[in-house]
Amino acid sequence: MIVDRLIEKVVKCKNHTVVGLDPRLDYVPDYIREAAKEQSVSFAEGVAKAFLAYNKGLIDSIYDIVPAVKPQIAFYEQYGIEGVKCFQQTCEYAASKGLLVIGDIKRGDIGSTAEAYSEAYLGNKEYSINTDFVTVNPYLGTDSLEPFVKHCHENEKGIFVLVKTSNKSSGELQDLVCNGKTIYEHVADLVVRLGEPYRGSSDYNFVGAVVGATYKEEASKLRNIMKNTYFLVPGYGAQGGTAEDVAACFNQDGLGAIVNSSRGIIAAYKSKEYNEKYSEKDYAAAARAAAIKMRDDINSELGKKNKLAWA
Amino acid sequence: MIVDRLIEKVVKCKNHTVVGLDPRLDYVPDYIREAAKEQSVSFAEGVAKAFLAYNKGLIDSIYDIVPAVKPQIAFYEQYGIEGVKCFQQTCEYAASKGLLVIGDIKRGDIGSTAEAYSEAYLGNKEYSINTDFVTVNPYLGTDSLEPFVKHCHENEKGIFVLVKTSNKSSGELQDLVCNGKTIYEHVADLVVRLGEPYRGSSDYNFVGAVVGATYKEEASKLRNIMKNTYFLVPGYGAQGGTAEDVAACFNQDGLGAIVNSSRGIIAAYKSKEYNEKYSEKDYAAAARAAAIKMRDDINSELGKKNKLAWA
Repeated sequence: MIVDRLIEKVVKCKNHTVVGLDPRLDYVPDYIREAAKEQSVSFAEGVAKAFLAYNKGLIDSIYDIVPAVKPQIAFYEQYGIEGVKCFQQTCEYAASKGLLVIGDIKRGDIGSTAEAYSEAYLGNKEYSINTDFVTVNPYLGTDSLEPFVKHCHENEKGIFVLVKTSNKSSGELQDLVCNGKTIYEHVADLVVRLGEPYRGSSDYNFVGAVVGATYKEEASKLRNIMKNTYFLVPGYGAQGGTAEDVAACFNQDGLGAIVNSSRGIIAAYKSKEYNEKYSEKDYAAAARAAAIKMRDDINSELGKKNKLAWA
Repeated sequence: MIVDRLIEKVVKCKNHTVVGLDPRLDYVPDYIREAAKEQSVSFAEGVAKAFLAYNKGLIDSIYDIVPAVKPQIAFYEQYGIEGVKCFQQTCEYAASKGLLVIGDIKRGDIGSTAEAYSEAYLGNKEYSINTDFVTVNPYLGTDSLEPFVKHCHENEKGIFVLVKTSNKSSGELQDLVCNGKTIYEHVADLVVRLGEPYRGSSDYNFVGAVVGATYKEEASKLRNIMKNTYFLVPGYGAQGGTAEDVAACFNQDGLGAIVNSSRGIIAAYKSKEYNEKYSEKDYAAAARAAAIKMRDDINSELGKKNKLAWA
């Protein structure tokens, strides 16, 4: 089961960090952009080539120290077909380096349509945009999630259902209280129900949850409701979540969460902390340094709370 | 403003019907599939070519009688890059025939990512997958919708926010009651708030709502809450919604809703009602007949309720 493979990789790397491959033109070093432009006939093709080269550099630099990457498809879709092609190539390249790939696609639709989305990313066809996990939106309820669960079961894949997101407005709907429970707790119940039949050799199953690092109290509550659910935690670093916030997402076994950082790692060379030591030519080395720092930051916090899986 | 253009087209066609371009291999006539296969080097390319030929036939047959088409991107995404290319070509072809294009993409994500999604479909770049409207998911709250609203304002586009969906499980979250209001009513309030500043020359604005035809009572309630909101209504026909159900989505001015049908129109030639009169060679003519029948069915019901905009 995919969640066992994830845990295996986390323990092997002693690292809960996921690198968010969310490229933006202004993150990509000039020399990569220039080279890509020269080889391209259109602007979008140039961007896609630049993103791919940039991503490959990042992947080469971090594949041995992190368990997974999470490309956010919107940043590719915005450059049209060329962008989507780059997303697919990025997923393929990451997988070829042994990384697990979380397609951050946040799709959600009624049954027959959900089936098509699931087929698109979890279908394992030679033309599919293959990923190991995808993120999905629960607003339409169970029948919009079941097709994904079916593919997960058949094709050894996983999903992360949006439960409590990291953004500022997330509370508008998610925090509303119905029958004594918030909406995000209702969604958490749904996640538990969907995942329950599919326990792996660990206690975890393949129906995970997205729980933002920026809401620590909510994360603690959710950790209690969803004991066997793996959390995908956005919001660390640039969005304001700290290692202490993130620690609330882990179980006492030192597992149960992977933490994403995008900008903080992939654009580390542009940050105040790294830009003196690393030039743009060393953007990938800076990313590696930032990923190691994040790993150590989280592990040290988990250690304080006796939550180290490998202790 | 885009909603004025939509109304203009609705009134000109005397038709509230939107044709859902949701192709499936088994809808596509054999002769189209065979021809596409011969011209293609891969399975996915063959499917994409077949879908495009099929869609063009449909569009040619209905462009003068309906105001808009709504391709559902999942049915294209499931065939990878070739599929997405076909989606883009379908949108372009429909637009070239004067149809408004509603990209049924149901995207939703945090601010910066929502911006990228919005750019992808409402961005008007030469590499964008250009549509006139997109559907969006509200689970993440206001800051996930604002980037779309901004593009709508700048680029003369529109959105339809999922409020009450047509599927069976839609009530699980959407019908939960918080502070005396269902979640879908809370979302309706949000839709009103987002659209309010952008009234067109009609009373409607460009922030629309998805309201399923399969829930008539809920639709009536929502019609009252969202007086100046255009509804995109799925669920007519194959999903069980009738003209009477749909009539609840209209305002007394005879406007305020467009009603989608996919299978019932694009695969009409396979149905009991049409398959004797229409062979697979006449699939597009059958689609036209079904679209006319749907138009008349809805108009006749609206007429009974004194809700005909052109009466």
